[in-house]
Amino acid sequence: MKKIKFKKVAFIGMGLIASSMARSMKKLGIADKIVTSVRSDKTRKVSLDLGLVSEAFNDPSEAITGADLVVIAIPLGSYGLVFENLSKNLDPKTIITDVGSVKQATVEIAEKHLPSKDMFVPGHPIAGTEHSGPNSGFADLFQGRWTILTPTKDTNLSSLEKVKSMWTLMGATVDIMTPTHHDKVLAITSHLPHLIAYTIVGTATDLEDDLRQEVIKYSASGFRDFTRIAASDPIMWRDIFLSNKEATLDMLQRFSEDLTAMQRAIRHGESGKLEKLFSRTRKIRRGIIDAKQA
Amino acid sequence: MKKIKFKKVAFIGMGLIASSMARSMKKLGIADKIVTSVRSDKTRKVSLDLGLVSEAFNDPSEAITGADLVVIAIPLGSYGLVFENLSKNLDPKTIITDVGSVKQATVEIAEKHLPSKDMFVPGHPIAGTEHSGPNSGFADLFQGRWTILTPTKDTNLSSLEKVKSMWTLMGATVDIMTPTHHDKVLAITSHLPHLIAYTIVGTATDLEDDLRQEVIKYSASGFRDFTRIAASDPIMWRDIFLSNKEATLDMLQRFSEDLTAMQRAIRHGESGKLEKLFSRTRKIRRGIIDAKQA
Repeated sequence: MKKIKFKKVAFIGMGLIASSMARSMKKLGIADKIVTSVRSDKTRKVSLDLGLVSEAFNDPSEAITGADLVVIAIPLGSYGLVFENLSKNLDPKTIITDVGSVKQATVEIAEKHLPSKDMFVPGHPIAGTEHSGPNSGFADLFQGRWTILTPTKDTNLSSLEKVKSMWTLMGATVDIMTPTHHDKVLAITSHLPHLIAYTIVGTATDLEDDLRQEVIKYSASGFRDFTRIAASDPIMWRDIFLSNKEATLDMLQRFSEDLTAMQRAIRHGESGKLEKLFSRTRKIRRGIIDAKQA
Repeated sequence: MKKIKFKKVAFIGMGLIASSMARSMKKLGIADKIVTSVRSDKTRKVSLDLGLVSEAFNDPSEAITGADLVVIAIPLGSYGLVFENLSKNLDPKTIITDVGSVKQATVEIAEKHLPSKDMFVPGHPIAGTEHSGPNSGFADLFQGRWTILTPTKDTNLSSLEKVKSMWTLMGATVDIMTPTHHDKVLAITSHLPHLIAYTIVGTATDLEDDLRQEVIKYSASGFRDFTRIAASDPIMWRDIFLSNKEATLDMLQRFSEDLTAMQRAIRHGESGKLEKLFSRTRKIRRGIIDAKQA
């Protein structure tokens, strides 16, 4: 495994992912110095108190001074402003990467603002929990998980290799694909499941009072798994759906059609059709177990 | 805790729930003798080999001879035939209970066939895994879980108490409600979540080949939880949806309306609305954690 070391890593944002990366980098000695810029006073204080960073700034353009790696780890809705701000004070040799859950929109924003398109290595670690903030991170979060990098035709190949080595050192297996393909894959594996979970938990919230109390009591029978997913950070998810609008709406449309077909089969008592639909889904589960992702 | 003991317990069906009950009953000495009737030769053999029962029959009416407790633990679609068969050879003092996931339809079938309405104690343990069959059971399955009993106005109160004591001994907390209320609560906490999980996994199954492979690879990002739910027994779930048609379709209708509203908010970029929808769902999660059901 190729050992790499950065002189100064600047994290823009210090939530679950960034704080896990900072912990892992410290543990592995990947960075001589780690700093962050965060808007919230409280998060700046927590990041310093936890020893995740040696300096915490309010202004991203201050944090990146002298950094050879900048990691953007903020909700997608803030990318535009932050890339604009950063670009004023950016050494053209700095590598910029990110951890956002949508990649095509991210590439478009980066290319609009950065002084050179080759600086940006778009990335997305497929890891996380339903918890948010710098306290929720842990060094092993990426161990045995995938990180997807989505370079464009302009991405500097040496920068790509460095970011790839960093993720490999932190325990992840790196996969490379195009930004648009990434967005389609994540639309079905992550964005649609979250949208559905948020919706059904919302449906339960609107129930008559007596029913709603019992939803909590008897949640173990299936509903509970959805509430865990629907407890994820609201701002982050709002931005994901709006940034990956096209692919999410496409997958949602397919799902809605399938749900309508299911509804019709139940209404008309089509038992053979239901049994067939419920049997074939076991194959995918089997595939996941075989792929050791269960 | 009131100690009870049955002379002979006859399980009609020997899947995950029945085999867990048999294990628990043996461990706790709740039954002098345990027998089963199962249609599959293989399951009869496994039940005997595992020592879950001392006798295994093909015909339910043979298994129940001399039993003071009969536990119906088969897919809901087989209830009609089995109740009809049983009723020919039933001692009026026998207690009949069941573990089915739908209660109003169950009560109607039982009352149609049983020689006396007071014999039946409808029950539903809120416990299970995505695995099926006699090998999947374990004695502690009901520990710390709810079991709902849904007596009618005709149910014998002494029989109800005995079934309640049995579940309490096996570690469950017993709740009493009407069959129709049970079916509404389970429609939102269990039946709709399963229907949605089956649907989204089906949607993924229909994807273009290249995308489908990657769904398995990247399933950890939300989709995986749905595949676990959608790996549940297809026959059992077909019957649940058809037996609880009205309440399931009602909840599905509410969900579909909410999903359409969500779709519209994404399409029109209504970020404030999305943030509000995603924020309020955290409250239900908090309730579940507070109720120690997480």
